[in-house]
Amino acid sequence: MILPIFLMFSFLLSSSCNALDFCVADLKTPQGLAGYSCKKLELVTVDDFVFSGLHAGNTSNLIKAAVTPAFTAQFPGVNGLGISIARLDLAVGGVVPMHTHPDSSEIIVVIQGIIDAGFVSSANKVYFKTLKTGDIMVFPQGLLHFQINAGTTPALAYVSFSSPSPGVQILDFALFGNDLPSNIIEETTFLDDAQVKKLKGVLGGTG
Amino acid sequence: MILPIFLMFSFLLSSSCNALDFCVADLKTPQGLAGYSCKKLELVTVDDFVFSGLHAGNTSNLIKAAVTPAFTAQFPGVNGLGISIARLDLAVGGVVPMHTHPDSSEIIVVIQGIIDAGFVSSANKVYFKTLKTGDIMVFPQGLLHFQINAGTTPALAYVSFSSPSPGVQILDFALFGNDLPSNIIEETTFLDDAQVKKLKGVLGGTG
Amino acid sequence: MILPIFLMFSFLLSSSCNALDFCVADLKTPQGLAGYSCKKLELVTVDDFVFSGLHAGNTSNLIKAAVTPAFTAQFPGVNGLGISIARLDLAVGGVVPMHTHPDSSEIIVVIQGIIDAGFVSSANKVYFKTLKTGDIMVFPQGLLHFQINAGTTPALAYVSFSSPSPGVQILDFALFGNDLPSNIIEETTFLDDAQVKKLKGVLGGTG
Amino acid sequence: MILPIFLMFSFLLSSSCNALDFCVADLKTPQGLAGYSCKKLELVTVDDFVFSGLHAGNTSNLIKAAVTPAFTAQFPGVNGLGISIARLDLAVGGVVPMHTHPDSSEIIVVIQGIIDAGFVSSANKVYFKTLKTGDIMVFPQGLLHFQINAGTTPALAYVSFSSPSPGVQILDFALFGNDLPSNIIEETTFLDDAQVKKLKGVLGGTG
Amino acid sequence: MILPIFLMFSFLLSSSCNALDFCVADLKTPQGLAGYSCKKLELVTVDDFVFSGLHAGNTSNLIKAAVTPAFTAQFPGVNGLGISIARLDLAVGGVVPMHTHPDSSEIIVVIQGIIDAGFVSSANKVYFKTLKTGDIMVFPQGLLHFQINAGTTPALAYVSFSSPSPGVQILDFALFGNDLPSNIIEETTFLDDAQVKKLKGVLGGTG
Amino acid sequence: MILPIFLMFSFLLSSSCNALDFCVADLKTPQGLAGYSCKKLELVTVDDFVFSGLHAGNTSNLIKAAVTPAFTAQFPGVNGLGISIARLDLAVGGVVPMHTHPDSSEIIVVIQGIIDAGFVSSANKVYFKTLKTGDIMVFPQGLLHFQINAGTTPALAYVSFSSPSPGVQILDFALFGNDLPSNIIEETTFLDDAQVKKLKGVLGGTG
Repeated sequence: MILPIFLMFSFLLSSSCNALDFCVADLKTPQGLAGYSCKKLELVTVDDFVFSGLHAGNTSNLIKAAVTPAFTAQFPGVNGLGISIARLDLAVGGVVPMHTHPDSSEIIVVIQGIIDAGFVSSANKVYFKTLKTGDIMVFPQGLLHFQINAGTTPALAYVSFSSPSPGVQILDFALFGNDLPSNIIEETTFLDDAQVKKLKGVLGGTG
Repeated sequence: MILPIFLMFSFLLSSSCNALDFCVADLKTPQGLAGYSCKKLELVTVDDFVFSGLHAGNTSNLIKAAVTPAFTAQFPGVNGLGISIARLDLAVGGVVPMHTHPDSSEIIVVIQGIIDAGFVSSANKVYFKTLKTGDIMVFPQGLLHFQINAGTTPALAYVSFSSPSPGVQILDFALFGNDLPSNIIEETTFLDDAQVKKLKGVLGGTG
Repeated sequence: MILPIFLMFSFLLSSSCNALDFCVADLKTPQGLAGYSCKKLELVTVDDFVFSGLHAGNTSNLIKAAVTPAFTAQFPGVNGLGISIARLDLAVGGVVPMHTHPDSSEIIVVIQGIIDAGFVSSANKVYFKTLKTGDIMVFPQGLLHFQINAGTTPALAYVSFSSPSPGVQILDFALFGNDLPSNIIEETTFLDDAQVKKLKGVLGGTG
Repeated sequence: MILPIFLMFSFLLSSSCNALDFCVADLKTPQGLAGYSCKKLELVTVDDFVFSGLHAGNTSNLIKAAVTPAFTAQFPGVNGLGISIARLDLAVGGVVPMHTHPDSSEIIVVIQGIIDAGFVSSANKVYFKTLKTGDIMVFPQGLLHFQINAGTTPALAYVSFSSPSPGVQILDFALFGNDLPSNIIEETTFLDDAQVKKLKGVLGGTG
Repeated sequence: MILPIFLMFSFLLSSSCNALDFCVADLKTPQGLAGYSCKKLELVTVDDFVFSGLHAGNTSNLIKAAVTPAFTAQFPGVNGLGISIARLDLAVGGVVPMHTHPDSSEIIVVIQGIIDAGFVSSANKVYFKTLKTGDIMVFPQGLLHFQINAGTTPALAYVSFSSPSPGVQILDFALFGNDLPSNIIEETTFLDDAQVKKLKGVLGGTG
Repeated sequence: MILPIFLMFSFLLSSSCNALDFCVADLKTPQGLAGYSCKKLELVTVDDFVFSGLHAGNTSNLIKAAVTPAFTAQFPGVNGLGISIARLDLAVGGVVPMHTHPDSSEIIVVIQGIIDAGFVSSANKVYFKTLKTGDIMVFPQGLLHFQINAGTTPALAYVSFSSPSPGVQILDFALFGNDLPSNIIEETTFLDDAQVKKLKGVLGGTG
């Protein structure tokens, strides 16, 4: 009695095997515009959809902050699903410097501590607020934003993104952490030469 | 007099060969998020765009129904075109059980017979009607829906999808046709243990 | 015992009322880029999702053909769902003239009769075939295509579109059924002046 | 010296005021396919982008669970940004019943406790795992999934969605919480009449 | 002092290497629906984003026109970026014949000379104007349009497209430059047999 | 003989009036996520698709540059078409300062003069080149970029965008032209207090 049902669905099921419920990234394939090619379905397991690596980051660094991502590269199950997440640890005094995500919006949820967060719109208006534990804030795609531990204890937050593989452009690294010539930086940012050279020194820039 | 025209268009035509009017699926390539890679243009023929395989399905099964698809796997010409079609045969008493298409809306057109069809919205409202020959009904993406032969003669319909490779999740198979533990099913569906075990028996489930 | 469940879901259900399972077109609102605004949910009934108006068209005209649409304007339930359908009647000798859909791909399924159908790619290759009853053919978005009754009996087909409101540009009407000046037509199509004026006469064009 | 710069940018800035960095939902406008119309920019404040309402939900109900959303209806700043979030409280024994999101993928991050979570693919394969505090899991769009408190203490999690206004179709409410006739349910799900009537009784269904 | 910052960003930067700021086409890979696979990041140079090949085209041909494209095939840096450009040279009397872009809108900016340009909507209305140097005009996706040198000096323009690899269907080539049988052309365009055969002769068509 | 043809197409044409070949912005309607609502078709004229306002900008300002846009606000015909354009005038010494477009890629074509242009990727690599007259360069969405007149004569360029209404975030205005507190700027950019206060003075910032 069971077999006929299976027979009945045989056409449909064989075709639906080609449908994409999901597309776990095969990170060894060349990357395309829409992400990676899909791991073969028979090789996919629940562990492609579960990630246990969002451990507390090491904040023993200059900015006293650590970002631990679960993007496609770490968590291939999100490939193509339009979402990813990261863990943010901010020691006392910790800062996530001014940055943008060129292709993704972000929501932060504060799990522990107090965080000052803000973004600047293309009309140059500042949207800035102190977030308490349990608060959330959304940062629209492509706009400059930042987070700062505003409390006297370490802060913990999770940040979700509207892309499985969000890019990040950190302002200081983009300006001072490469070989962009100092005079070009100065002409296009109006920063003083001494300031530019000082930060190039800190961030390893040349030129 | 002919040649200069061709010369004139030589740049444009050579570039437009890289434009994608269509992308007949090369089913041997790894599948990506946006479908398959394209068959080389010089290998594409009209037979990639025509399909003659929508024959009457065999309804000699428990649910007296047959679905014959023309999705990317059977009909590679639809790859990337955002549309596909299938043939639905319902013998007297035939049923397409409760199911969803996670990524596709559907339109049914009744060619022969009478069909009861319906879907349930996420506000839990039922949209249910008896369709006569020539009637159409649309089922929005991702919502539970079903079709039943409501007449005394076999019914025939065509169902179009807004995806070239629509997935299908048939409720009974999803719940009872695999190794999802009975206690998990019962906790998450409030079904009785006897009911769950009975249907696992019918549909080949374990656990 | 029932109430607590409802309480539990009260937040979620009230929010999901704002989710869009579907968006039945409110045809009285101004049209936007993504279609019409949505009819209020409490006014939506199953009759917004069912259409019984695909009657046989009147083919007593010069081209012996009739197209009866179920697009957003006739069938507001498809608004935003990425799919629509129309009925095509072709009397003996009937023709759907050369045309494009600027924003939609199309699948034809032949219900009765025999139909010659074809399209031309942007590489100027012709994909042309005689379709028998039960055959389907896909016409990729934006390319010139046509259908002709190739048999000795009336033909009936359904055509599905990957847009709820597909546009159609019929070549002869675009060239000869308006006030595009004859000399401009001739310069841009290389047609002879007599030919242009003859067809302007037939199709009501001026200039 | 300042004025000329402003003059220089006057054209650009006036035009960029029409660009959409974000589109805070004006919930009083009719909803469209792509969400709500935008609140006027001069009325937007940082409080449109911050939400403090993700309080602990009341789990004193049959399923010992509470979902507190921050979707467009509660948090209009996410309108159009392709992302939203909700808080999930599960008391001991708490369950989020089998459900789908017809238009959204989801990531869960476990903040406290232990959660059994799983989903079923359209190939009917079960992806099921016990999540510890700090673990994340992704549930692809449109597929049946569930979460269960698997520990001996209350569990807390945040769930992010790839839509600002995710729909939710809870299986039991869709089947048993409305007026879908019992015989239709039985024909399309193979459930026994007694089972259907029992659950209709619990969930307030009729017919 | 520098190292800790780098350490801090090590997770984030390694993951962002998988993010797609851009996807320079690797033209040797098979083409997919969303374009080509991406050239490896370490092989990408500024020359992938700069193109110096938009030289004056040779207008010594029948239509006295030349189109020089910078599409993905010539300018792989635009792959996936939703934009491309071409140079248009029109000698005195030059014409870009009636054509469509099945998947792209276009903006023309006139750099030198005077150009008559127009398009026809699917409601068969003609939008036609004489453009002076410095004027721009937009041609919506998929609609028939044309450009003619309306002055007494050569004209130069740039045309931008909303696709990195816009297709082009030139009406005369589509109708007369292939093996579409004359009787089919005549039945579907109402053109006279003599006209069809004459243009097939000019454009190299057969059948 | 003419009338029957019109009768035949009456259904189709009436429906296609609801199809969107284009959607000229009705700038008086509230803006939605996908742009503006559409101007009524009977009010649309060719002048909605043609723009003659890209005059030479006034470069008598500090940065010796002027950008003249043809975005939706100035040129409503591009609404929804995924493309727009602007004119860029750079006097000798003129600079377009470091900026991003959060939602748009850009192609520049140099009409007169020599321009230094560059962008920085999220991997912090600089792509920088001197563009001669006739050269083009593409700037991917959301990345910091700039243009500088590198010659001894005024430069003229056109810049096309992959959005009809591209936003622009000019780095100096975002950081120094508003009320973002100086200490926040300093913590998130590592700039010195004196530098921040100097630029706030120049650009009209407070706090």
